[in-house]
Amino acid sequence: MKKNDKILLDHGSGGKISHAMIEEMMLPVFDNPILAQLNDGAEIKVGDERLAFSTDSYVVDPIFFPGGNIGDLAVNGTVNDLAMSGAVPMFLSVGLIIEEGFPAADLNVILCQMGLAAKKAVVLVVTGDTKVVPRGAADKIFINTSGIGRIPDGVQISGHRARPGDKILLSGTLADHGIAILTSREGMRFDSPVISDTAALNHLVQRMLAVDRDIHVLRDPTRGGLGTTLNEIAGQSKVGIHIAEERIPIKPDVAALCELLGFDPLYIANEGKLIAVISPDHADAVLAVLRADPLGKDACIIGEVVQTPAGRVILQTRIGGTRIVDMLTGEQLPRIC
Amino acid sequence: MKKNDKILLDHGSGGKISHAMIEEMMLPVFDNPILAQLNDGAEIKVGDERLAFSTDSYVVDPIFFPGGNIGDLAVNGTVNDLAMSGAVPMFLSVGLIIEEGFPAADLNVILCQMGLAAKKAVVLVVTGDTKVVPRGAADKIFINTSGIGRIPDGVQISGHRARPGDKILLSGTLADHGIAILTSREGMRFDSPVISDTAALNHLVQRMLAVDRDIHVLRDPTRGGLGTTLNEIAGQSKVGIHIAEERIPIKPDVAALCELLGFDPLYIANEGKLIAVISPDHADAVLAVLRADPLGKDACIIGEVVQTPAGRVILQTRIGGTRIVDMLTGEQLPRIC
Repeated sequence: MKKNDKILLDHGSGGKISHAMIEEMMLPVFDNPILAQLNDGAEIKVGDERLAFSTDSYVVDPIFFPGGNIGDLAVNGTVNDLAMSGAVPMFLSVGLIIEEGFPAADLNVILCQMGLAAKKAVVLVVTGDTKVVPRGAADKIFINTSGIGRIPDGVQISGHRARPGDKILLSGTLADHGIAILTSREGMRFDSPVISDTAALNHLVQRMLAVDRDIHVLRDPTRGGLGTTLNEIAGQSKVGIHIAEERIPIKPDVAALCELLGFDPLYIANEGKLIAVISPDHADAVLAVLRADPLGKDACIIGEVVQTPAGRVILQTRIGGTRIVDMLTGEQLPRIC
Repeated sequence: MKKNDKILLDHGSGGKISHAMIEEMMLPVFDNPILAQLNDGAEIKVGDERLAFSTDSYVVDPIFFPGGNIGDLAVNGTVNDLAMSGAVPMFLSVGLIIEEGFPAADLNVILCQMGLAAKKAVVLVVTGDTKVVPRGAADKIFINTSGIGRIPDGVQISGHRARPGDKILLSGTLADHGIAILTSREGMRFDSPVISDTAALNHLVQRMLAVDRDIHVLRDPTRGGLGTTLNEIAGQSKVGIHIAEERIPIKPDVAALCELLGFDPLYIANEGKLIAVISPDHADAVLAVLRADPLGKDACIIGEVVQTPAGRVILQTRIGGTRIVDMLTGEQLPRIC
């Protein structure tokens, strides 16, 4: 970045500009091969143990939304980042930044929801920190969660491992979380509102690993959406990715709202979905495991990995054409998670 | 807390009200014996490894101050929390929350200082997250760091292990960080300003452990200061603590500013100091190690652990009387770290 540049909302989008900032400003400073992997959770070694370590700060607005709140989102999000390394999440930390004057009753609800989400995911919150800042210095509440998980022997999941011929699986419908936040933020009211898909995927991942220990890539398409995440994988693995629009599941009301509001569901955040890149021999078995789970009942094989064009994601559209799907450029929805 | 209560600055002070909130609202919800230990870093077991895990969010204002900035403070602070379990800090995560419009050049300085601090402490930043919020939704930049360290065999440090007869060591002068922040925030100018003591204490701790593997308690007196930290130890260990005012080192200019501004240095935050509770047989050897290190050159034995009154900290004043030192009540200095 240039000397007088300012940080823009785009820098936090999870898309193209976020990636550029990480590559320009962060990788050189914290120069080490673990960070440079750029997976959802870092793989670290302590003694003989392979661990996953991940962090995320949650700044979602509104803090309460259909299907969840900032508390369970913060637990599920970091649990999922760990699970995307194939790890069994074990321990979480919680860092709260609270605006002076925030209602204690709301804090209590958020904490209780965090506790329930942790119980459901079978992780322990073992350490925490609370800062309170004067009125106006933060908007209500921000929550950081960091987590540690244990990577089972033989599991080797990384964005670098997609190979031509691999199948791309998506565990369910796109864009539910983003549209739930957006409609709720804008005060749009419906008889049956769109519900966020926030959920912990760690148990599902372990069931997938039970039928295919050699899953190549796992990723949850949060900020930046499916389009950005597939681009990350294509870039890390230096392969092409072909997906078919007609195979991508999306709820009719969510599709209609995306159309109405002018958003491309490929770039909208999900908080309870995963992408798996799987050897063709195992793809059907893993798909069956996904579909047998309530969190994966709408799972589909949406495409496959190809040799060329390396680093590119190509979408076959419903009407038969093809188009390049780039990383998200610009910020569609700030404070989505 | 009652139904209509609001979160106050006091809830983030690190003092009495912070503790009450943790005990009322957090321990019941996240109910587990590791969190309930309430040490600076949680001790967790993964396989055969004993690890320390800690988190802190940094909201200091101003973000640049004499002796440091929010970046190195965030690295040193979490390194120190890990070190206070006797752990060798290994890995850090960094979660940034940045206000839209923040100067990229400032971000770059902060990141570079984080990188330098990490190098000095010999820890790797292995994972991160960046969120950008719209102008006015946060004040400039907040940084969360979480960390993982390995606890060497035989080391068993905990706030619960202070025993009557133990000596209380303090590694250096009090109140430097708090007064540096306060004077800088208020725009007070001096020929030689008070400099924050922000520093990583992990190497010093390992040198202390080399002469006394059985250090009972380590704690860094940050928010809430020496007074609050000693009360925590007295409460956890169910012992009394006697300290002598005349033995507590403080720089003359810092003492004068505390007097002038009406602050009690016992409650002011430090960011490069530690308290050690040590068996009387080893106290002199550990003191010698401290004094041989630039970070511990002003170290003193400031008091000792007694049987009664359990849970109380008693100060022998310079003029010969005694007074009870309670935990910090109220918030002296918001956004001190």
